Amino acid sequence: MSANNSSDVVIGVDFGTLSGRAVVVRVSDGAELASAVHTFEHGVVSTALPGASSVVLPPDTALQIPEDYRAVLGNAVPKALAAAGVAPERVIGIGTDFTACTVLPTTADGTPLCELPEFADRPHAYPKLWKHHAAQREADDINALARERGETWLARYGGRISAEWEFAKGLQVLREDPEVYARADRWIEAADWIVWELCGRETRNVCTAGYKGIHQDGAWPSRDYLAALDPRFAGFAEDKIAHPLSQLGAPAGRLSARAAARTGLPEGITVAVGNVDAHVTAAAAQTVEPGRMLAVMGTSTCHVMNAATFAEVPGMCGAVLDGIVPGLWGYEAGQSGVGDIFGWLAEGFVPASYQREADDLGVSVHDLLSRKSADQPVGGHGLVALDWHSGNRSVLVDHHLSGVIAGLTLATRPEEVYRALVESTAFGTRTILDAFAASGVPVTEFTVAGGLKRNAFVLQIYADVLNRPLHVTDSDQAPALGSAIHAAVAAGAYPDIRAASAAMGGATRDAVLPDPGRAAAYDGLYAVYTELHDHFGRGGSDALHRLRAIRNQSLTR
Amino acid sequence: MSANNSSDVVIGVDFGTLSGRAVVVRVSDGAELASAVHTFEHGVVSTALPGASSVVLPPDTALQIPEDYRAVLGNAVPKALAAAGVAPERVIGIGTDFTACTVLPTTADGTPLCELPEFADRPHAYPKLWKHHAAQREADDINALARERGETWLARYGGRISAEWEFAKGLQVLREDPEVYARADRWIEAADWIVWELCGRETRNVCTAGYKGIHQDGAWPSRDYLAALDPRFAGFAEDKIAHPLSQLGAPAGRLSARAAARTGLPEGITVAVGNVDAHVTAAAAQTVEPGRMLAVMGTSTCHVMNAATFAEVPGMCGAVLDGIVPGLWGYEAGQSGVGDIFGWLAEGFVPASYQREADDLGVSVHDLLSRKSADQPVGGHGLVALDWHSGNRSVLVDHHLSGVIAGLTLATRPEEVYRALVESTAFGTRTILDAFAASGVPVTEFTVAGGLKRNAFVLQIYADVLNRPLHVTDSDQAPALGSAIHAAVAAGAYPDIRAASAAMGGATRDAVLPDPGRAAAYDGLYAVYTELHDHFGRGGSDALHRLRAIRNQSLTR
Repeated sequence: MSANNSSDVVIGVDFGTLSGRAVVVRVSDGAELASAVHTFEHGVVSTALPGASSVVLPPDTALQIPEDYRAVLGNAVPKALAAAGVAPERVIGIGTDFTACTVLPTTADGTPLCELPEFADRPHAYPKLWKHHAAQREADDINALARERGETWLARYGGRISAEWEFAKGLQVLREDPEVYARADRWIEAADWIVWELCGRETRNVCTAGYKGIHQDGAWPSRDYLAALDPRFAGFAEDKIAHPLSQLGAPAGRLSARAAARTGLPEGITVAVGNVDAHVTAAAAQTVEPGRMLAVMGTSTCHVMNAATFAEVPGMCGAVLDGIVPGLWGYEAGQSGVGDIFGWLAEGFVPASYQREADDLGVSVHDLLSRKSADQPVGGHGLVALDWHSGNRSVLVDHHLSGVIAGLTLATRPEEVYRALVESTAFGTRTILDAFAASGVPVTEFTVAGGLKRNAFVLQIYADVLNRPLHVTDSDQAPALGSAIHAAVAAGAYPDIRAASAAMGGATRDAVLPDPGRAAAYDGLYAVYTELHDHFGRGGSDALHRLRAIRNQSLTR
Repeated sequence: MSANNSSDVVIGVDFGTLSGRAVVVRVSDGAELASAVHTFEHGVVSTALPGASSVVLPPDTALQIPEDYRAVLGNAVPKALAAAGVAPERVIGIGTDFTACTVLPTTADGTPLCELPEFADRPHAYPKLWKHHAAQREADDINALARERGETWLARYGGRISAEWEFAKGLQVLREDPEVYARADRWIEAADWIVWELCGRETRNVCTAGYKGIHQDGAWPSRDYLAALDPRFAGFAEDKIAHPLSQLGAPAGRLSARAAARTGLPEGITVAVGNVDAHVTAAAAQTVEPGRMLAVMGTSTCHVMNAATFAEVPGMCGAVLDGIVPGLWGYEAGQSGVGDIFGWLAEGFVPASYQREADDLGVSVHDLLSRKSADQPVGGHGLVALDWHSGNRSVLVDHHLSGVIAGLTLATRPEEVYRALVESTAFGTRTILDAFAASGVPVTEFTVAGGLKRNAFVLQIYADVLNRPLHVTDSDQAPALGSAIHAAVAAGAYPDIRAASAAMGGATRDAVLPDPGRAAAYDGLYAVYTELHDHFGRGGSDALHRLRAIRNQSLTR
């Protein structure tokens, strides 16, 4: 196998929140020959279990159904292959990426516990989706104990383990359904489970182990620490998740006969080690080199970047050696609300007259608001907002914060608030970049992927606020392309991810350039943002926490 | 004449911003027999002069046409009389009130300069409406110089003379059109001018002289002070406004033959001294006794209250001896944005689905938003707002402030923001009451007049936030009733305003009672409001001023 064999193709499969996407990619140059999407039949399960509808799920629960994942392999893969007009024999490998932390309990042979008849009506036997937010109490306990004991791994996660991750979710299962907990031979990321489905062999990837599983410096949280959380939890790491870790871009195994039958791919082709959607995108975006930050911008934003060394960057989500590509430290940061904040305004706070105007022009309300505010000089609305409608992930790591809009007058119009919200998320990004720079891990380039990469209005504001050129990924299905690139590496077509990324990935450099005048003007607004950010977010005022406490108390009275 | 003559009636005429209203009132008990409204043909003149449309008016200009005022006398008065079925001979007096400070230049015989052909195309020859806001620079100069010289009268106005008042507007005329300034024998409140029209005799009432004309302790600002502002301005007070002052409730004169012909009223009946709409309402609301605060709540709110003694209450708009009734200190405070802030949200930020729902229910959007949020427990929205969309009048006296909303999440709905805005104005009122109490001028009762008195949702929130019962004026045209009460006093039917108010005014006591649980819960939200209020309003942060400066700079670039 070699990159010179120009007829070789690989398959990348990206498992999202509501669907999975397969893409057929030419190994020699990364050309995307065809793709297909398969929507999960059950989507996100948050109110009742399918087939056991009498089981009412508590608030903040978000589960999924493993068979929905298999259906992507069985439908999207052959469909994409057929659409590409490519003979299956030309496929040399398959790679996958998943949302994370999406995690499930299985038996020792990888059977999801929810597929055992005796556990079909037990919510804790099902995969917990990344946005299952019912384990906050467990996360709080994990963090409090880690701080108390001075656990060194805590600093690798901006000082806080998330309620979304493996240990909090696992502890919730133990506390709320000890039988399911006891029966679970494995507690495994869906990213690794789907690879097990493909090659019939259990592997664990370094990426989820590091970012979601608290694996640092070759070790899991100690038995002592876990026992102090709960004596029954002492063996959680060594019994249910510990397994030799596999490097990204390595082969996990070969496609099993069963998986070959399901996908229509040749038995025995290479299956790549599992990966996370945002992290695998770095390969597609050509941002694997140190200092190249990739921002996957959609309803929320995930930032991933490599660096040669470790530095403690305040408020990052995680720093993991080999976490994006082998040999480099992979940093992850994020903004918990971005596009969904724009949507909140556009969908909930725009009057009928705007809807009619948008309809008349044949554009979306988002586009109408963008057009109406695009030509206003910077600061002309007199507004600044804090982009904390979903709390703040980086750099404050505080999900009890909330949004603020300041500078309102009777003349303030919806398009001005909309623009101020877009700007606030750009200021949030600038705050993250400032934190990296101040910690000695400078961001030298900034590349955008995700749904918002097509939004010229948003990108221009980001370029002006960050005062730097934006590069934009070429692929509209960059995570799936990234998985395909990993498959090519695993299959031996390239020596490593960096080489494969250079050949198969793609981004338009300097796609959006800052305007010097606007950039200078934004410095003044950003200074106001920073003042409010630090006042409300760094202890100057606890007003937002008090409002949250008042709200929670009031609603549970 | 005596109150026992049960057939006697009086006429009250209330001149508003867009129309005038006449009411026919029985002297013996204040019964309102009929009323009529006449709309100003020219309304507020802010873009071009009528008949001289080539004269483009600068921003923030707000002028009116004197003939529109006369038309109210000629139309609304006879119409109201006819509707009441009352013979003109039964009318023993007429009283009027006006917006203030609405002020105009006239000749020595009271002819408005704008009615002289040579000045018809000169904007500064026209009456300047209260909301003419183009004299801020002049107000700034007036305040800076007064502070520098330590003028004692400044403390009577919360430390700041408004751009809306007589001296700022007069100085603007001098600076921008010295010819008009030189030709103006008089600079007179419309409140006094309309009385001049009725009785053919110039008078000046103590109320506007004190609240809008800087008349304190028997004197106007000194010639020295005025000369320091501008040598040409030295004689402004003594030449153009100084005149023996008339007490409220006193007769200004008798109805002239010309005015009798215009109104259809008998020549020679008593014409009461002029008055201001908010202040005259105290008589109608039975709030003339010390400690009874009247809140005239509409698009904005004006608070007036009497006290036996003077105390310097921070941020009041003015304290004037005899300013509401003779013998007491009249205090005025205000909130520059109230109902218009609710309107801003209801009209500009409510989606089509809400409009449809309101239409289906046959209610206004305001009512729909009220219904949707009324049952939510206090603080359930997690929000607190600063009610500064039009700046802050009391207690901060700072028109460069702007509105803030804190606590937003992706789940925040329009009705929740609406309720938070209503609450913010109630918190603003509570802040004013706290300032009075802290200054030794306690508010013992709180009575509501104005358009919002019919809004049960708003009133309940005010009762809960203030944690005190609300009394509500009975009359729906309380200013006009107040003017009629003053007419009855001027005509000698009652010994003084207090006696006439007791007999002719009316309010429903304890119309709205606070709920102890909600009141207690509001203490927590009010504490957050106060923290934000003081942080952004008292120097903790200049963020809002910086946003305003950035906006103004950006829009004039």
